Amino acid sequence: MSFTLFPYEQLFRFSNEVFQKMGCDAEDALLATKVLLSADVRGIDSHGIARLSGYVRLWEAKRVNANAKVSILHQTPSTATVDGDSGLGLVVAPKAMQIAIDNAKSVGTGWVSVQNSNHFGIAGYHAMMALEEDMIGICMTNASPLVAPTFSTERLLGTNPICVAVPSGEEPPFVADLATTTAANGKLEILQRKNGVAPLGWIQNKDGGPSTDPHELKVGGSLLPLGGDREHGSHKGYALGAIVDIFSAVLSGANYGPWVPPFPAYVPMPTNMPGKGIGHFFGAMRIDAFRPASEFKQHMDQWIRRFRSAKTAAGHEKVIIPGDPEREMESIRMKEGIPLLGPVVDDLGYLSEKFGVKL
Amino acid sequence: MSFTLFPYEQLFRFSNEVFQKMGCDAEDALLATKVLLSADVRGIDSHGIARLSGYVRLWEAKRVNANAKVSILHQTPSTATVDGDSGLGLVVAPKAMQIAIDNAKSVGTGWVSVQNSNHFGIAGYHAMMALEEDMIGICMTNASPLVAPTFSTERLLGTNPICVAVPSGEEPPFVADLATTTAANGKLEILQRKNGVAPLGWIQNKDGGPSTDPHELKVGGSLLPLGGDREHGSHKGYALGAIVDIFSAVLSGANYGPWVPPFPAYVPMPTNMPGKGIGHFFGAMRIDAFRPASEFKQHMDQWIRRFRSAKTAAGHEKVIIPGDPEREMESIRMKEGIPLLGPVVDDLGYLSEKFGVKL
Repeated sequence: MSFTLFPYEQLFRFSNEVFQKMGCDAEDALLATKVLLSADVRGIDSHGIARLSGYVRLWEAKRVNANAKVSILHQTPSTATVDGDSGLGLVVAPKAMQIAIDNAKSVGTGWVSVQNSNHFGIAGYHAMMALEEDMIGICMTNASPLVAPTFSTERLLGTNPICVAVPSGEEPPFVADLATTTAANGKLEILQRKNGVAPLGWIQNKDGGPSTDPHELKVGGSLLPLGGDREHGSHKGYALGAIVDIFSAVLSGANYGPWVPPFPAYVPMPTNMPGKGIGHFFGAMRIDAFRPASEFKQHMDQWIRRFRSAKTAAGHEKVIIPGDPEREMESIRMKEGIPLLGPVVDDLGYLSEKFGVKL
Repeated sequence: MSFTLFPYEQLFRFSNEVFQKMGCDAEDALLATKVLLSADVRGIDSHGIARLSGYVRLWEAKRVNANAKVSILHQTPSTATVDGDSGLGLVVAPKAMQIAIDNAKSVGTGWVSVQNSNHFGIAGYHAMMALEEDMIGICMTNASPLVAPTFSTERLLGTNPICVAVPSGEEPPFVADLATTTAANGKLEILQRKNGVAPLGWIQNKDGGPSTDPHELKVGGSLLPLGGDREHGSHKGYALGAIVDIFSAVLSGANYGPWVPPFPAYVPMPTNMPGKGIGHFFGAMRIDAFRPASEFKQHMDQWIRRFRSAKTAAGHEKVIIPGDPEREMESIRMKEGIPLLGPVVDDLGYLSEKFGVKL
């Protein structure tokens, strides 16, 4: 597949203007742009500017409110339930995470469950907000159903990611950002474009049988929970995805399971929806609510060094610390630019024309 | 393998007397017994009375303090760091979870990280303490190293389980209790006893190559993180195990990674240990800190019913809700008795003789 390199600044300006044309105020447009592009620079291409036209289409379909006012529905000293007012998840999520951080400042930890939101980009951005405050950041979201629970043929869960970001001292931070499936949906989308073959254990066909054809996902097949099959622990991946669904949606009053709204604006909404929008869950834990931050960071550095220097199996250079690949990608892309595939550039061209914004 | 059935009450009396002979006071002996046997009744045989002689040997080796006084080292309104005083994890853990629950009562959530503890039985017992308070319970622990991170040949993590217990209304609660490995170590121990064959993806040999021989674990092989290999997401299982290690030990001041003390008393302690004992992490979130409990439970029931009634793949009767198998096992074993294998009965005989306690 061929791609074109774009400097970060160029995509930033473009995306910022598009969000403003949608009706976001200057502050929200800036925030949405920062969050959206953090995916591109970290190498999670499926969640970055490639989705910009998708957000615009949701706004056109009146499923996204560009002037959303995020509000607190209920709170205690360490918790809040937030109503995202149908806003862009890209804006709702960092605002909700900020509430969690503020609560942590006053009582040690903060926990926020969000209803009535939309797709929030990468979980990593929000969890990593905690790092500069010497806090551990936690972030989850549910998503539209693509994943079959173990033994089922029905798609009842999204890829429901979990991100945990942990501050360190001299070493770079530990940032684990993972879908609770064997493979993220973005990887399947790439295989679909290439007509490639998926490894066994990533997907099943509509009858629940093993499959290596990524196109099965378009005809009733499902992604598989982390583990792949029961013998390899798929019931654990299913349980993890379920926990994300419950914390994000049953706790907040958002939609859960098969009722989570779809991202593509042309897909009809589910019927009999039990909640509002999609749901997220955020946590922030102040390190010094447990032990002095300097002491913690010293041990976190020791943890990271011990794991990074572990003996490797033949053919592998080093053991990777969660967050390493994304950080390395970020330093490359901020220097060399962000590669966009042809169809993504076409999509940006469509937006450029629609809004009269120069790419 | 042949086994003998024992009534719960008989094992309860025996275990309670053994803990008292070790020097536990009446209250702690009762608590340790309840926690220990909750594993047997829920069908997690590897963590129940089969370990009683192991705890005794740790006490003989002066690695377990039967008179431990659990104390709080540091706290904020929503957190506490607890020193387990080298006590039985079976006693330290429920006391620490109680602190988390008490904090949740006052500020919405409670989070407790524990140092200087020992093996705590099943995570499920502690997390489920939250249920009767209309709270979500969370429990994790690190454990002695058996698991190699992705690409490594070294054992740097334990099977590091996570348990999340969620209250419901008319349906039984959702209780997910999972090791962050493809297969729990108990399953490998059973295969070792039977000279059985492990499925590919459960273990690797000492060079990091695939293996189906459970005995490899005794000659430098490792358990594999959930996912099995990189292509099937083992980096996610590794990240989850790492998160448990960090929350349980780097946050509390316990030992982490390869320095976690071993369970068998004959295995020498690691050198240059960076902390004290093994570490746990507990959380309690009051449901009504987010939304009215009755509303939550109604939706949790709907969640459970939707998943339980999902269409199944051929050959499978129903989709399982996390916690179903353990609850079904409990109702059988409380009626019919707890099956113990010959070597376990022999071990109890040794304890009976040693302490002069009738089995």
